[in-house]
Amino acid sequence: MNDTRKHVEVCFTPGEYAYFKGEYEIVVVIDVLRATSAICAAFDNGVAAIIPVPTVEEARDYKERGYLAGAERKGQIVEGFDFGNSPYSYMREEFKGKEIVLSTTNGTKSLDVAKDAEVVVVGSLLNVTALSHWLSKQDKNILCLCSGWQDKFNLEDTICAGAIADYLVSTGQFTSDEDSSIAAKYLYLSAKDNYLGYLKSSSHRRRLKNLNLNEDIKYCLTPDQTDVIPILRNGKLVKL
Amino acid sequence: MNDTRKHVEVCFTPGEYAYFKGEYEIVVVIDVLRATSAICAAFDNGVAAIIPVPTVEEARDYKERGYLAGAERKGQIVEGFDFGNSPYSYMREEFKGKEIVLSTTNGTKSLDVAKDAEVVVVGSLLNVTALSHWLSKQDKNILCLCSGWQDKFNLEDTICAGAIADYLVSTGQFTSDEDSSIAAKYLYLSAKDNYLGYLKSSSHRRRLKNLNLNEDIKYCLTPDQTDVIPILRNGKLVKL
Repeated sequence: MNDTRKHVEVCFTPGEYAYFKGEYEIVVVIDVLRATSAICAAFDNGVAAIIPVPTVEEARDYKERGYLAGAERKGQIVEGFDFGNSPYSYMREEFKGKEIVLSTTNGTKSLDVAKDAEVVVVGSLLNVTALSHWLSKQDKNILCLCSGWQDKFNLEDTICAGAIADYLVSTGQFTSDEDSSIAAKYLYLSAKDNYLGYLKSSSHRRRLKNLNLNEDIKYCLTPDQTDVIPILRNGKLVKL
Repeated sequence: MNDTRKHVEVCFTPGEYAYFKGEYEIVVVIDVLRATSAICAAFDNGVAAIIPVPTVEEARDYKERGYLAGAERKGQIVEGFDFGNSPYSYMREEFKGKEIVLSTTNGTKSLDVAKDAEVVVVGSLLNVTALSHWLSKQDKNILCLCSGWQDKFNLEDTICAGAIADYLVSTGQFTSDEDSSIAAKYLYLSAKDNYLGYLKSSSHRRRLKNLNLNEDIKYCLTPDQTDVIPILRNGKLVKL
C-alpha cells in the first residue's frame, strides 16, 4: 500500500537548508526571538506589508527613500534606525496600513534563503495554532525552517517547529522521517507545558536577558495571540 | 566571582564545526552507527592503529600498497573492499596488532574536519563511561562533534554526545551554554533507559534496517562494552 501522507520536516538552521531544498512546496520560516514574532505582531496591528531584506545596507537604502525601516543585529537596534525586531515596536498607531522594511540577524536571512520555495509563510508561537490548522489543509510537503542564532541551532525555534510537526502528524495526513523532525517533536513535547521555564537555561534567552528584553521574551513565548498568517508574495510579506 | 568551569558543548554535524572551531582543546568525534563504534571495537580486539581517510580513493591507494583497508558508503561496503564499518568486521584474529585504513560516509569525514584540534578522541556508546571519566580529568574545553547522516542531524550521535555532556556537567567542573548542548542533554535523558526503543523511529536506523544490520545496531547501542579510548596521533588513531 502506498503511503500518500505528505512530509513535515524540520531544518534547524538556514545553513542546512541546502540539504532539504527542493523537496518541500511550503517553507515555514521561524524566528521566535524575535523577528517572526514581530512580523506576526505587525500584521495583527494592521501593517499592510513587510519587506524583509538580508542586509542592513538594503534597509538603509529603503530608509533614505522614505520607507519606514527597522534593523536589528545581535539583539540590538542598529544605529541610525528607530526600531529593530521588538514586537512592541510594531504596535504603533502610525504603522497601520503602512509598508515596513526589516533586516534582522537571523530571521530575514532565513526568509532570504527560502524565498524561491513555492510558498513561504511566517511562523511563531504567536500564530502557531492558526498556522498549523491552515497548513493541515494544504496537502503539500512542508519544511519548518528554524532561523537559529548566528548559524547555530536554537531551542525556541526548534520547539515551535516541533509544535507544528506534532500537530500535522497527529492529523494522520502527514509523516516525519528526518531525525531533526523527531528530535524537534520530542523537545516540543517536553517544553509545551512551560515554555518560559523550559527555555530559561537557553543561551539565546540568557543573551537577550542581558539586553533587558524580558517583556519581549514573555510576549514571544505566549502562544496563540493572533490568527494572522504572513505569506511572501513578490518579495513582500503580506497577510494571507 | 569568576566561573572557572570548562565548557562541554555539542556540535550536531561536521558542517557546523566551523562555528565552534578553535574554542575547544579536545574534540570527541562520534558516529554511533557505525564508524566510531567499529573503531572502538577494533581497538578492543587488539588492532594496533587505524588510519582514517576521508575519500574512498585514498583507502584504495593504501589497499594497493598492501594495507588492510575498509570502505563504507551509504551503509554498504564499497565494491573492491572486504569490509566496511561493521564492528563485527574488526573482531577477526588476523587484525590483532595490525594497522587498518578506513573510510566511511560520515565518521571519517568528522575526524578529518577535527584533525587540527589539540586533542581528538573517538567516542561511541561502547566506550561512553570510560571516555567520560577520562574527559572529566583533563581540565580542558570539550566539543562533542556528531557525525550526523549525510550532513544532517542524527539522533544516535546526539544522544551519545548528550550522555557525555550530562556526565561532565554533573561533576560540577563543566558547564554547557549552547542550545545544541542543552537539547542533546534533554534528548539523552529521555532516551537513556531504552536506546533501542527510543531510536526505533529514527530515519538512520530505519535505513540501516533495510540493509539487514539489526545485529550491528543492537551492538552499537549497548553502552560500556569497552574501556578503550582511541586518540588521533600524527594522522593515526591509536589506543590511549
